[in-house]
Amino acid sequence: MAWIGIDIGGTFIKGGLVADDGRVERTARRDSERFDLTALSAKIDDLVGELGADAGPRGIGVGAPGLVSNASVDFAPNMPALNGRDLAGIVGSRTGLPAVVRNDADMNAWGEFLAGAGQGVTHMVCITIGTGLGSGVIIDGKLHGGASGYGAEAGHIVVDPDGGPCCCGGRGCLETLVSAPAIVRRVEDALGKGRRSVLADGEAVTAKRVSEAATGGDELSVDTLSETGRYLGIGLTTLINVLNPEAIIVGGGVAAAGRLLLDPARREVDARAYSRLSQACRIVPAALGSDAGMVGAALFAMEYLGKASGRRHPAPAG
Amino acid sequence: MAWIGIDIGGTFIKGGLVADDGRVERTARRDSERFDLTALSAKIDDLVGELGADAGPRGIGVGAPGLVSNASVDFAPNMPALNGRDLAGIVGSRTGLPAVVRNDADMNAWGEFLAGAGQGVTHMVCITIGTGLGSGVIIDGKLHGGASGYGAEAGHIVVDPDGGPCCCGGRGCLETLVSAPAIVRRVEDALGKGRRSVLADGEAVTAKRVSEAATGGDELSVDTLSETGRYLGIGLTTLINVLNPEAIIVGGGVAAAGRLLLDPARREVDARAYSRLSQACRIVPAALGSDAGMVGAALFAMEYLGKASGRRHPAPAG
Repeated sequence: MAWIGIDIGGTFIKGGLVADDGRVERTARRDSERFDLTALSAKIDDLVGELGADAGPRGIGVGAPGLVSNASVDFAPNMPALNGRDLAGIVGSRTGLPAVVRNDADMNAWGEFLAGAGQGVTHMVCITIGTGLGSGVIIDGKLHGGASGYGAEAGHIVVDPDGGPCCCGGRGCLETLVSAPAIVRRVEDALGKGRRSVLADGEAVTAKRVSEAATGGDELSVDTLSETGRYLGIGLTTLINVLNPEAIIVGGGVAAAGRLLLDPARREVDARAYSRLSQACRIVPAALGSDAGMVGAALFAMEYLGKASGRRHPAPAG
Repeated sequence: MAWIGIDIGGTFIKGGLVADDGRVERTARRDSERFDLTALSAKIDDLVGELGADAGPRGIGVGAPGLVSNASVDFAPNMPALNGRDLAGIVGSRTGLPAVVRNDADMNAWGEFLAGAGQGVTHMVCITIGTGLGSGVIIDGKLHGGASGYGAEAGHIVVDPDGGPCCCGGRGCLETLVSAPAIVRRVEDALGKGRRSVLADGEAVTAKRVSEAATGGDELSVDTLSETGRYLGIGLTTLINVLNPEAIIVGGGVAAAGRLLLDPARREVDARAYSRLSQACRIVPAALGSDAGMVGAALFAMEYLGKASGRRHPAPAG
């Protein structure tokens, strides 16, 4: 039995044919379409055709950026094509397969929970750091949806009440301090003040280049990741104190910086969080890399659409 | 069928005999014992005897301050008698009735959820503001316990990363900014700087007096509650963005200040939270007053001990 998982990003649409046990049998991708829904859904249809041609997939799970309720993509500032759209309905009618849509960071979390670094855990948070900071929360073995299905927007924990504006309308949110743009901004500010760095070569600064330079020992880059990690640690402290999770899994492009980001975050958590709660919580890197979203989306489709078509799972004991 | 609920505070031990439907049939109280476990358990036994004498209660639920795991009171900085104690075992063997112990703010939340301002809601947070700031979170109709059973310690959301020390070992936690001691500190600081107020009469400043003076129009007291409310609003913003609840219920002694505290908190939430999420969430005063804890503890005993003795509730649909 196989399911198709689709992860819609700003750059690529990635898809995978995933077996019931989370094994990825086949992958494919297309360039993304941020503004044109017709072109986007044609590409998804094409991708589904390539992945599922001879496999008879039972359904499609889609991870999409933005605020995704149980019904539709309600607010996708970085992906205007999706704004206010019933993406599950569109993908379903276009492909002829049942489809379900959830937030991309929720799908990353579901993938890591079932097939990655969260295996065996009951309560966890998965943070995905890239252009923004997304999150998914698993409570008692279930994906936390909340009242609207938006689930956990940990990128919008208020970390600095007097901080800069955030795309959500607030100020000083974790995402404004811990994300690729935040890292780039810190480096550019320091370069502007004349600080020496291998990045002062006139090329565009990217978070990836900062990670690489830090690994090579560039002091500005190490300091920048360390400062970013400290802010991450403040946000994780709040998550630990509020949710009492067993594990926090950190993934996404920016997390590729590894210990240069996570060690300062852990130190901040150790200094700040209620010790009984932080001792109960491991902070670990994600295991599935950029496959997490499509694996999670496929396994979520299996769970959700499988249920809808008659399968029932007993809820975990409270 | 009746159950006994006990709410252990620093000043009083309050008890109630509570019917299955949440109706309080009888109440009683004793002065508390913060340091002497033997004296404390004798008083609980005495209280249980008075409440249950001719009613044949089926079990006892206890709300206790501090970090309470599913097994015991692990850390109770304000109640040394309880520190590290298996309170459920002690109460059970002393009274001969099955007993269950949870955090007092969790029991407040459970009471408000089943019999107070949270009736009909599926996802909610209940904040209790007094000497500290406690919280309980209901997700999908269940009390959130987390990995250790400590549940939600919203008082330890980091609101001001550079703020003052907190009893949890951290800094700038919500509780250091929104609690009776925080209100008293703000007023005393202002009086020390010569600010005029009806509270500058040489009597000890208490949060209750500040509330009363504010209601009477005292400007310093109004400003103090307003500043406290703004900090509360920053903490609530994080809770709304992370949990997507339908309702946040605010209770406890300090919440008696009513709109003078809650209106500034709501304004801060409106200015800061993701609007789709804040629009989905009502912020409302608690309905059960100081009975919430004992009602919640009794109804939790009914749920928990009733289940253990064979009754089964279907889990709410996910």
